[in-house]
Amino acid sequence: MAQDLHPRSAVAVTHFADRLTDAVERKRSQLVVGLDPVVEQLPRGLRREAEAGRAEAASVFVRFCCGIVDAVAPHAVAVKPQSAFFEALGSAGVRAFEEVCAYARAADLLVIADAKRGDIGSTARAYAAAFVEPRGAEPPLADAVTLNPYLGGDSLEPFLTACRQHGAGIFCLVKTSNPGGADVQDVTLSGGGRLWEHVAGLVHDWGDDLVGDSGLSAVGAVVGATFPREVAEARSLLPQAVLLLPGIGAQGGAPADVAPAFAAGPAGALVSASRSVIYAVGNGEDDYRAAAGAEAQRLAREVWAVSGA
Amino acid sequence: MAQDLHPRSAVAVTHFADRLTDAVERKRSQLVVGLDPVVEQLPRGLRREAEAGRAEAASVFVRFCCGIVDAVAPHAVAVKPQSAFFEALGSAGVRAFEEVCAYARAADLLVIADAKRGDIGSTARAYAAAFVEPRGAEPPLADAVTLNPYLGGDSLEPFLTACRQHGAGIFCLVKTSNPGGADVQDVTLSGGGRLWEHVAGLVHDWGDDLVGDSGLSAVGAVVGATFPREVAEARSLLPQAVLLLPGIGAQGGAPADVAPAFAAGPAGALVSASRSVIYAVGNGEDDYRAAAGAEAQRLAREVWAVSGA
Repeated sequence: MAQDLHPRSAVAVTHFADRLTDAVERKRSQLVVGLDPVVEQLPRGLRREAEAGRAEAASVFVRFCCGIVDAVAPHAVAVKPQSAFFEALGSAGVRAFEEVCAYARAADLLVIADAKRGDIGSTARAYAAAFVEPRGAEPPLADAVTLNPYLGGDSLEPFLTACRQHGAGIFCLVKTSNPGGADVQDVTLSGGGRLWEHVAGLVHDWGDDLVGDSGLSAVGAVVGATFPREVAEARSLLPQAVLLLPGIGAQGGAPADVAPAFAAGPAGALVSASRSVIYAVGNGEDDYRAAAGAEAQRLAREVWAVSGA
Repeated sequence: MAQDLHPRSAVAVTHFADRLTDAVERKRSQLVVGLDPVVEQLPRGLRREAEAGRAEAASVFVRFCCGIVDAVAPHAVAVKPQSAFFEALGSAGVRAFEEVCAYARAADLLVIADAKRGDIGSTARAYAAAFVEPRGAEPPLADAVTLNPYLGGDSLEPFLTACRQHGAGIFCLVKTSNPGGADVQDVTLSGGGRLWEHVAGLVHDWGDDLVGDSGLSAVGAVVGATFPREVAEARSLLPQAVLLLPGIGAQGGAPADVAPAFAAGPAGALVSASRSVIYAVGNGEDDYRAAAGAEAQRLAREVWAVSGA
């Protein structure tokens, strides 16, 4: 399964989709838990502590997220920490983001940095360095990163290089889970079809020579689980891509809605849930870890059943 | 000129485009200097120091960028620190970004955080908090932020609120300066026109009720100076928007190419140059500040002449 991208290097680098496929089969799970820490939604004790200031909140975010990581690690293949919630606390928050990513990787979880970056030239190279390239002697911050395709193919190049050289993965936004995405993504093109379908074609092309032994590409796509018909269509437009499907739970999507996404195999789609898992316990309760673990287990089983694996 | 958005609050908040117009008229300049620190391109002494490690590089970035700020402050209306180059150094780099932004604001420069963020719902709110909202007792990190429009109108809402409540500005990507942008931005639509023209129309609508006393909106647009025809067309599609025009200098654009952008007045367009200013001195020289100041002055005068102000 492990495709050694650097047969002569000291450290063997495994293709992202092969690492993912291995984890999916081993854990019998396609669940990704989104880490979206928000002060107001934390369990009561932690919330009170976090309200003291930004540095305190950053420290609480680390404790909260690491608690979630411990609880969901047996049931999820990956966590998806959302950079924005950490950035809102400034550099202290970014430091917390780094700690949470490292903790999750050590806990046998893949880390998908939800950063939705997109820029050009040397700037895109800097973002690739920030998220998916080794940092000196340290490993990359994350296994994969979400990207915005608006700036086109050359803006993706440094990330494709990281896929090739460092076993990174990327997930390009294609059809997002929010209603407003239609403003841009659903405009119809002169040749027929909507913009997001055109972007899906680009994503397919970008990932076409980055397919691992698993048959899946290191270049995946984000498609909102809130649009089941589009998920099925994305599957046929992107036969080799891992589809990352957010919008399950708090946003209203259900696992059964996305069953067609698994036509590419058990690791062909990842179902992402955030708030419904990490805030599974009410604010009045203390044991948020147990509640998150139970909800992750329940959801992982439901998705596994739907996937036909 | 100053439009008080909060007539009853203790601190008067001035509309972003009014602050900008004031600065343009006062400094007789539409120059924005991009702060793109890259270790390999630093003057020799600084480079050697920065090569010691990420923390050292972050510290050098602060010193280098603050030196540039001192040198260009009389000639530029704004600096545009590029978040990616700081993020590439991890949380230490983000701390440096915060220091550079604060230093530039204290030096009478507007700060446009070049972050190209774009996300939905509570995540978009977190990004607005990170970049353009007051941070507790501290002012916002930046006066304005660049945003990616792929996720549509609802993804912009928290930023529009920040424009309204806190005098923030935003610059939406419309037509980017790189060749690959065409992959997505230049596709033709069924109703005629290209995608970026459709996005320009959206940006116009999003900013239509955020026009200040200056006649300009707090919602601006990024249009690459490398595409002069598109710049002129964007001007007519976006009569109230401040156009932020990157791509002058190292990327090949020239001030004369973008003259039509000033049809909306002297503050209707900002010309952004990065490498050609901050690395105006060769690596062998020491006085990078003087070289940057001289190039900023030269470029600002050239743009001012072209603007017809």
